[in-house]
Amino acid sequence: MTAPEQLLSEFIRHASVSTDPGAQVGMEGARAWVAGQLRDLGFAVEEIATPLHPLLLAERRTRPEHPHLLLYGHYDVQPADPYELWTTPPFEAAVRHGRIYGRGAADNKGPMVVHLSALREVLHTNPDLPLNLTYLVEGEEEIGSPSFRGFLEQYRERLAEAEVVLLSDTASPSTEQLVITTALRGLLYVGVKVTGPRTDLHSGMHGGAVRNPIQALATLLASLHTENGAVNVPGFYDEVTPPADWEREELTHVGRSAEDYARFLGVDAFFPPPGYSPEEAIRFAPTLEFNGIGGGFQGEGVKTVIPSEARAKITCRLVADQDPFVLEERVCQALRDRCPPGVTLELETGSRAYPYSVIPPDRPNTPADQPEAVARAFHAVENAVTDTFGRRPLYLREGGSVPLVADLQKIAGLDTILLGLFTPEDNLHAPDESFSLRTLERGIPAFAEIFRRIAGSTD
Amino acid sequence: MTAPEQLLSEFIRHASVSTDPGAQVGMEGARAWVAGQLRDLGFAVEEIATPLHPLLLAERRTRPEHPHLLLYGHYDVQPADPYELWTTPPFEAAVRHGRIYGRGAADNKGPMVVHLSALREVLHTNPDLPLNLTYLVEGEEEIGSPSFRGFLEQYRERLAEAEVVLLSDTASPSTEQLVITTALRGLLYVGVKVTGPRTDLHSGMHGGAVRNPIQALATLLASLHTENGAVNVPGFYDEVTPPADWEREELTHVGRSAEDYARFLGVDAFFPPPGYSPEEAIRFAPTLEFNGIGGGFQGEGVKTVIPSEARAKITCRLVADQDPFVLEERVCQALRDRCPPGVTLELETGSRAYPYSVIPPDRPNTPADQPEAVARAFHAVENAVTDTFGRRPLYLREGGSVPLVADLQKIAGLDTILLGLFTPEDNLHAPDESFSLRTLERGIPAFAEIFRRIAGSTD
Repeated sequence: MTAPEQLLSEFIRHASVSTDPGAQVGMEGARAWVAGQLRDLGFAVEEIATPLHPLLLAERRTRPEHPHLLLYGHYDVQPADPYELWTTPPFEAAVRHGRIYGRGAADNKGPMVVHLSALREVLHTNPDLPLNLTYLVEGEEEIGSPSFRGFLEQYRERLAEAEVVLLSDTASPSTEQLVITTALRGLLYVGVKVTGPRTDLHSGMHGGAVRNPIQALATLLASLHTENGAVNVPGFYDEVTPPADWEREELTHVGRSAEDYARFLGVDAFFPPPGYSPEEAIRFAPTLEFNGIGGGFQGEGVKTVIPSEARAKITCRLVADQDPFVLEERVCQALRDRCPPGVTLELETGSRAYPYSVIPPDRPNTPADQPEAVARAFHAVENAVTDTFGRRPLYLREGGSVPLVADLQKIAGLDTILLGLFTPEDNLHAPDESFSLRTLERGIPAFAEIFRRIAGSTD
Repeated sequence: MTAPEQLLSEFIRHASVSTDPGAQVGMEGARAWVAGQLRDLGFAVEEIATPLHPLLLAERRTRPEHPHLLLYGHYDVQPADPYELWTTPPFEAAVRHGRIYGRGAADNKGPMVVHLSALREVLHTNPDLPLNLTYLVEGEEEIGSPSFRGFLEQYRERLAEAEVVLLSDTASPSTEQLVITTALRGLLYVGVKVTGPRTDLHSGMHGGAVRNPIQALATLLASLHTENGAVNVPGFYDEVTPPADWEREELTHVGRSAEDYARFLGVDAFFPPPGYSPEEAIRFAPTLEFNGIGGGFQGEGVKTVIPSEARAKITCRLVADQDPFVLEERVCQALRDRCPPGVTLELETGSRAYPYSVIPPDRPNTPADQPEAVARAFHAVENAVTDTFGRRPLYLREGGSVPLVADLQKIAGLDTILLGLFTPEDNLHAPDESFSLRTLERGIPAFAEIFRRIAGSTD
């Protein structure tokens, strides 16, 4: 094993499942491991208490006039169940076919090992690198970062001394082609509950008289998309601005054919809204998805019941300029307008994050007031990646949401450059999560070069 | 407590939950209790082994030329959970406000106590009652009578010595107005599974590209009814014959207003198919009901997943002349025809029982070949009920299915008279199941009179 593989294996061994109250030892172990790594690199490390899992605030200060980069990572991971679907135990790293397997290998321990190893390389050869560094390591990312905003509020002045944030918690299409994510999607949540009769009914004694809540719910949900894949909610697309031509053009360089994507997903047809290809739809279009549905008898066999109620969970991904609270109300209004007689409707809402976008310099729609330090960092990252990977990174929007990116902007005024190191093959949040050894091997020199360039050493 | 209340309390105390492997003591206790009662009444009781729960075959033989009545009951009950919704423990009978509460109080222990107490009364005053009696007591009714058909095949000749079956495992609209059920509905089952992507997907990384299996399932299910409540499956109503005029007329005597029925169910509107009132729909029309639905994330909070699959359970209630296997294929074909691209459909089928009907004598559509003994039994029951309740029983179809009634006909050639003793207020299969003391009080003399009349004592 190489040194970085060894490091990642150690890190994976700490079962840091933030949602599991029984995983305290793993959480403490992972935190202590990261703190030790950062102290070795010369960082001053503070452990900041939160109501749940402490976060680490580490600093390497040089001189105030030097550039100041904020790095972010998280030491917590998703739960590993179902365990039986793992080929090897999730908390014992195993190398197979050029990949290292384990829970958190890609999300976010592998990318953190890339950052830490790159720092080791740079600081070894240049101990006096003129770069102020703040390294934030969170322990609650996989449970929605409940303490992070409060931390940002409290430490905002200190954090605002940085000029730009760099993090690697997004995807690239492959180990050969890195992506800098220029926009994330926002999120809104609507829980739907439809109640019919006051209690479950015998389908023989009462079937045919009442509206079945599952029938009502199915009808409601079915009304939310048109046959051609558009979201059928009045006003849903009102604030959607189409992507710039360069963004569509950039997407053509991803190099994943529709056939490859369909095969990867295991579907025989796509269902994008009109005017978008599947690859465009997941980046440029808002969505309305059903995340769960339930009602009545779901066990084995037959139970002839008319359930009293049925429920569904809806989330929408939103693009720039869509206000989640406005869209939430439009979705709720459509549901209320369409609820048939014979049942009552209860809605639970929870809009969560505004979309965020930052466009790299020298592009048609880059904001005029983009800070110079941000532009410089973009250039440094682009040039470093181009030199080390032999291809420039692509600038693409991503379909996911990283709420803390918007919070960093809003609270500390910091823009974030998201350089993705994991890929769709890495099985994030699923059994047999893995991280490519190729990314360890090439990502480390790339990030070393990024740090050198941001420090101005070679720019 | 009166003697019948005491008997019912004892019977309820045996927690005879046939589906629960841990309820062996309750099953054995209930069976022994019934056997003891029947022996006390002079029956010869055999315990017939089955693969699961034995049934009791009890006989009181007089002379071959005497009438021969077969009584049926079941000593098993539904599970009692959720326990926390019971006002008093489900297996400790409690009397409140004129009702006796406990699991099985109405289904079927209360009606069995009526039968047993009536037999005690009749045989006490007339030990030589010229009536052959066979009493069948099943222990697997609440789990679908898996052993009953095999038992019928094996004992058919002995059972066929009876002339007619009498059972009380159906409903009457109230304690004051009894109903003789003239027809039951058949049943078919279709399990639906829709599969989209090969695995659950992150709704950010892939949302907008693929058809969500819940969306596909909702669209499929929503297509199965029209807006006015008809089942939207080609040919679904082809073999449905409308009820006879006298049947519609009979229904007007039930005395439950639409408002009362809606209040009882807790709904603000009905959803019957066109051409049927709600009361007619549950008796005369076939249905397509959703018994359960499930897919994706159903826990608390938000999980932004596109599920790989979603499932639903459909059952149809069928009326006379509808062949469940033909209808099953029509439902499946409609689902297959409407399944949208991007998902695959798997169907599981299980048609279960043909509908059964027996029309009382002197009605326009009574079959010409109705056995004389059946006609005599109908008259005996009608007259006995009229004398003891002060109102003749109504002859109504019922919405439920009692598969063993069709099996008794098919295998042993026996018609069944179903005289309902429980009411919609009794909460069958639900918490706080109860049985009215009024029905105990009046049902016993009514059944005593029925036995006397069938024996020919006063007819």
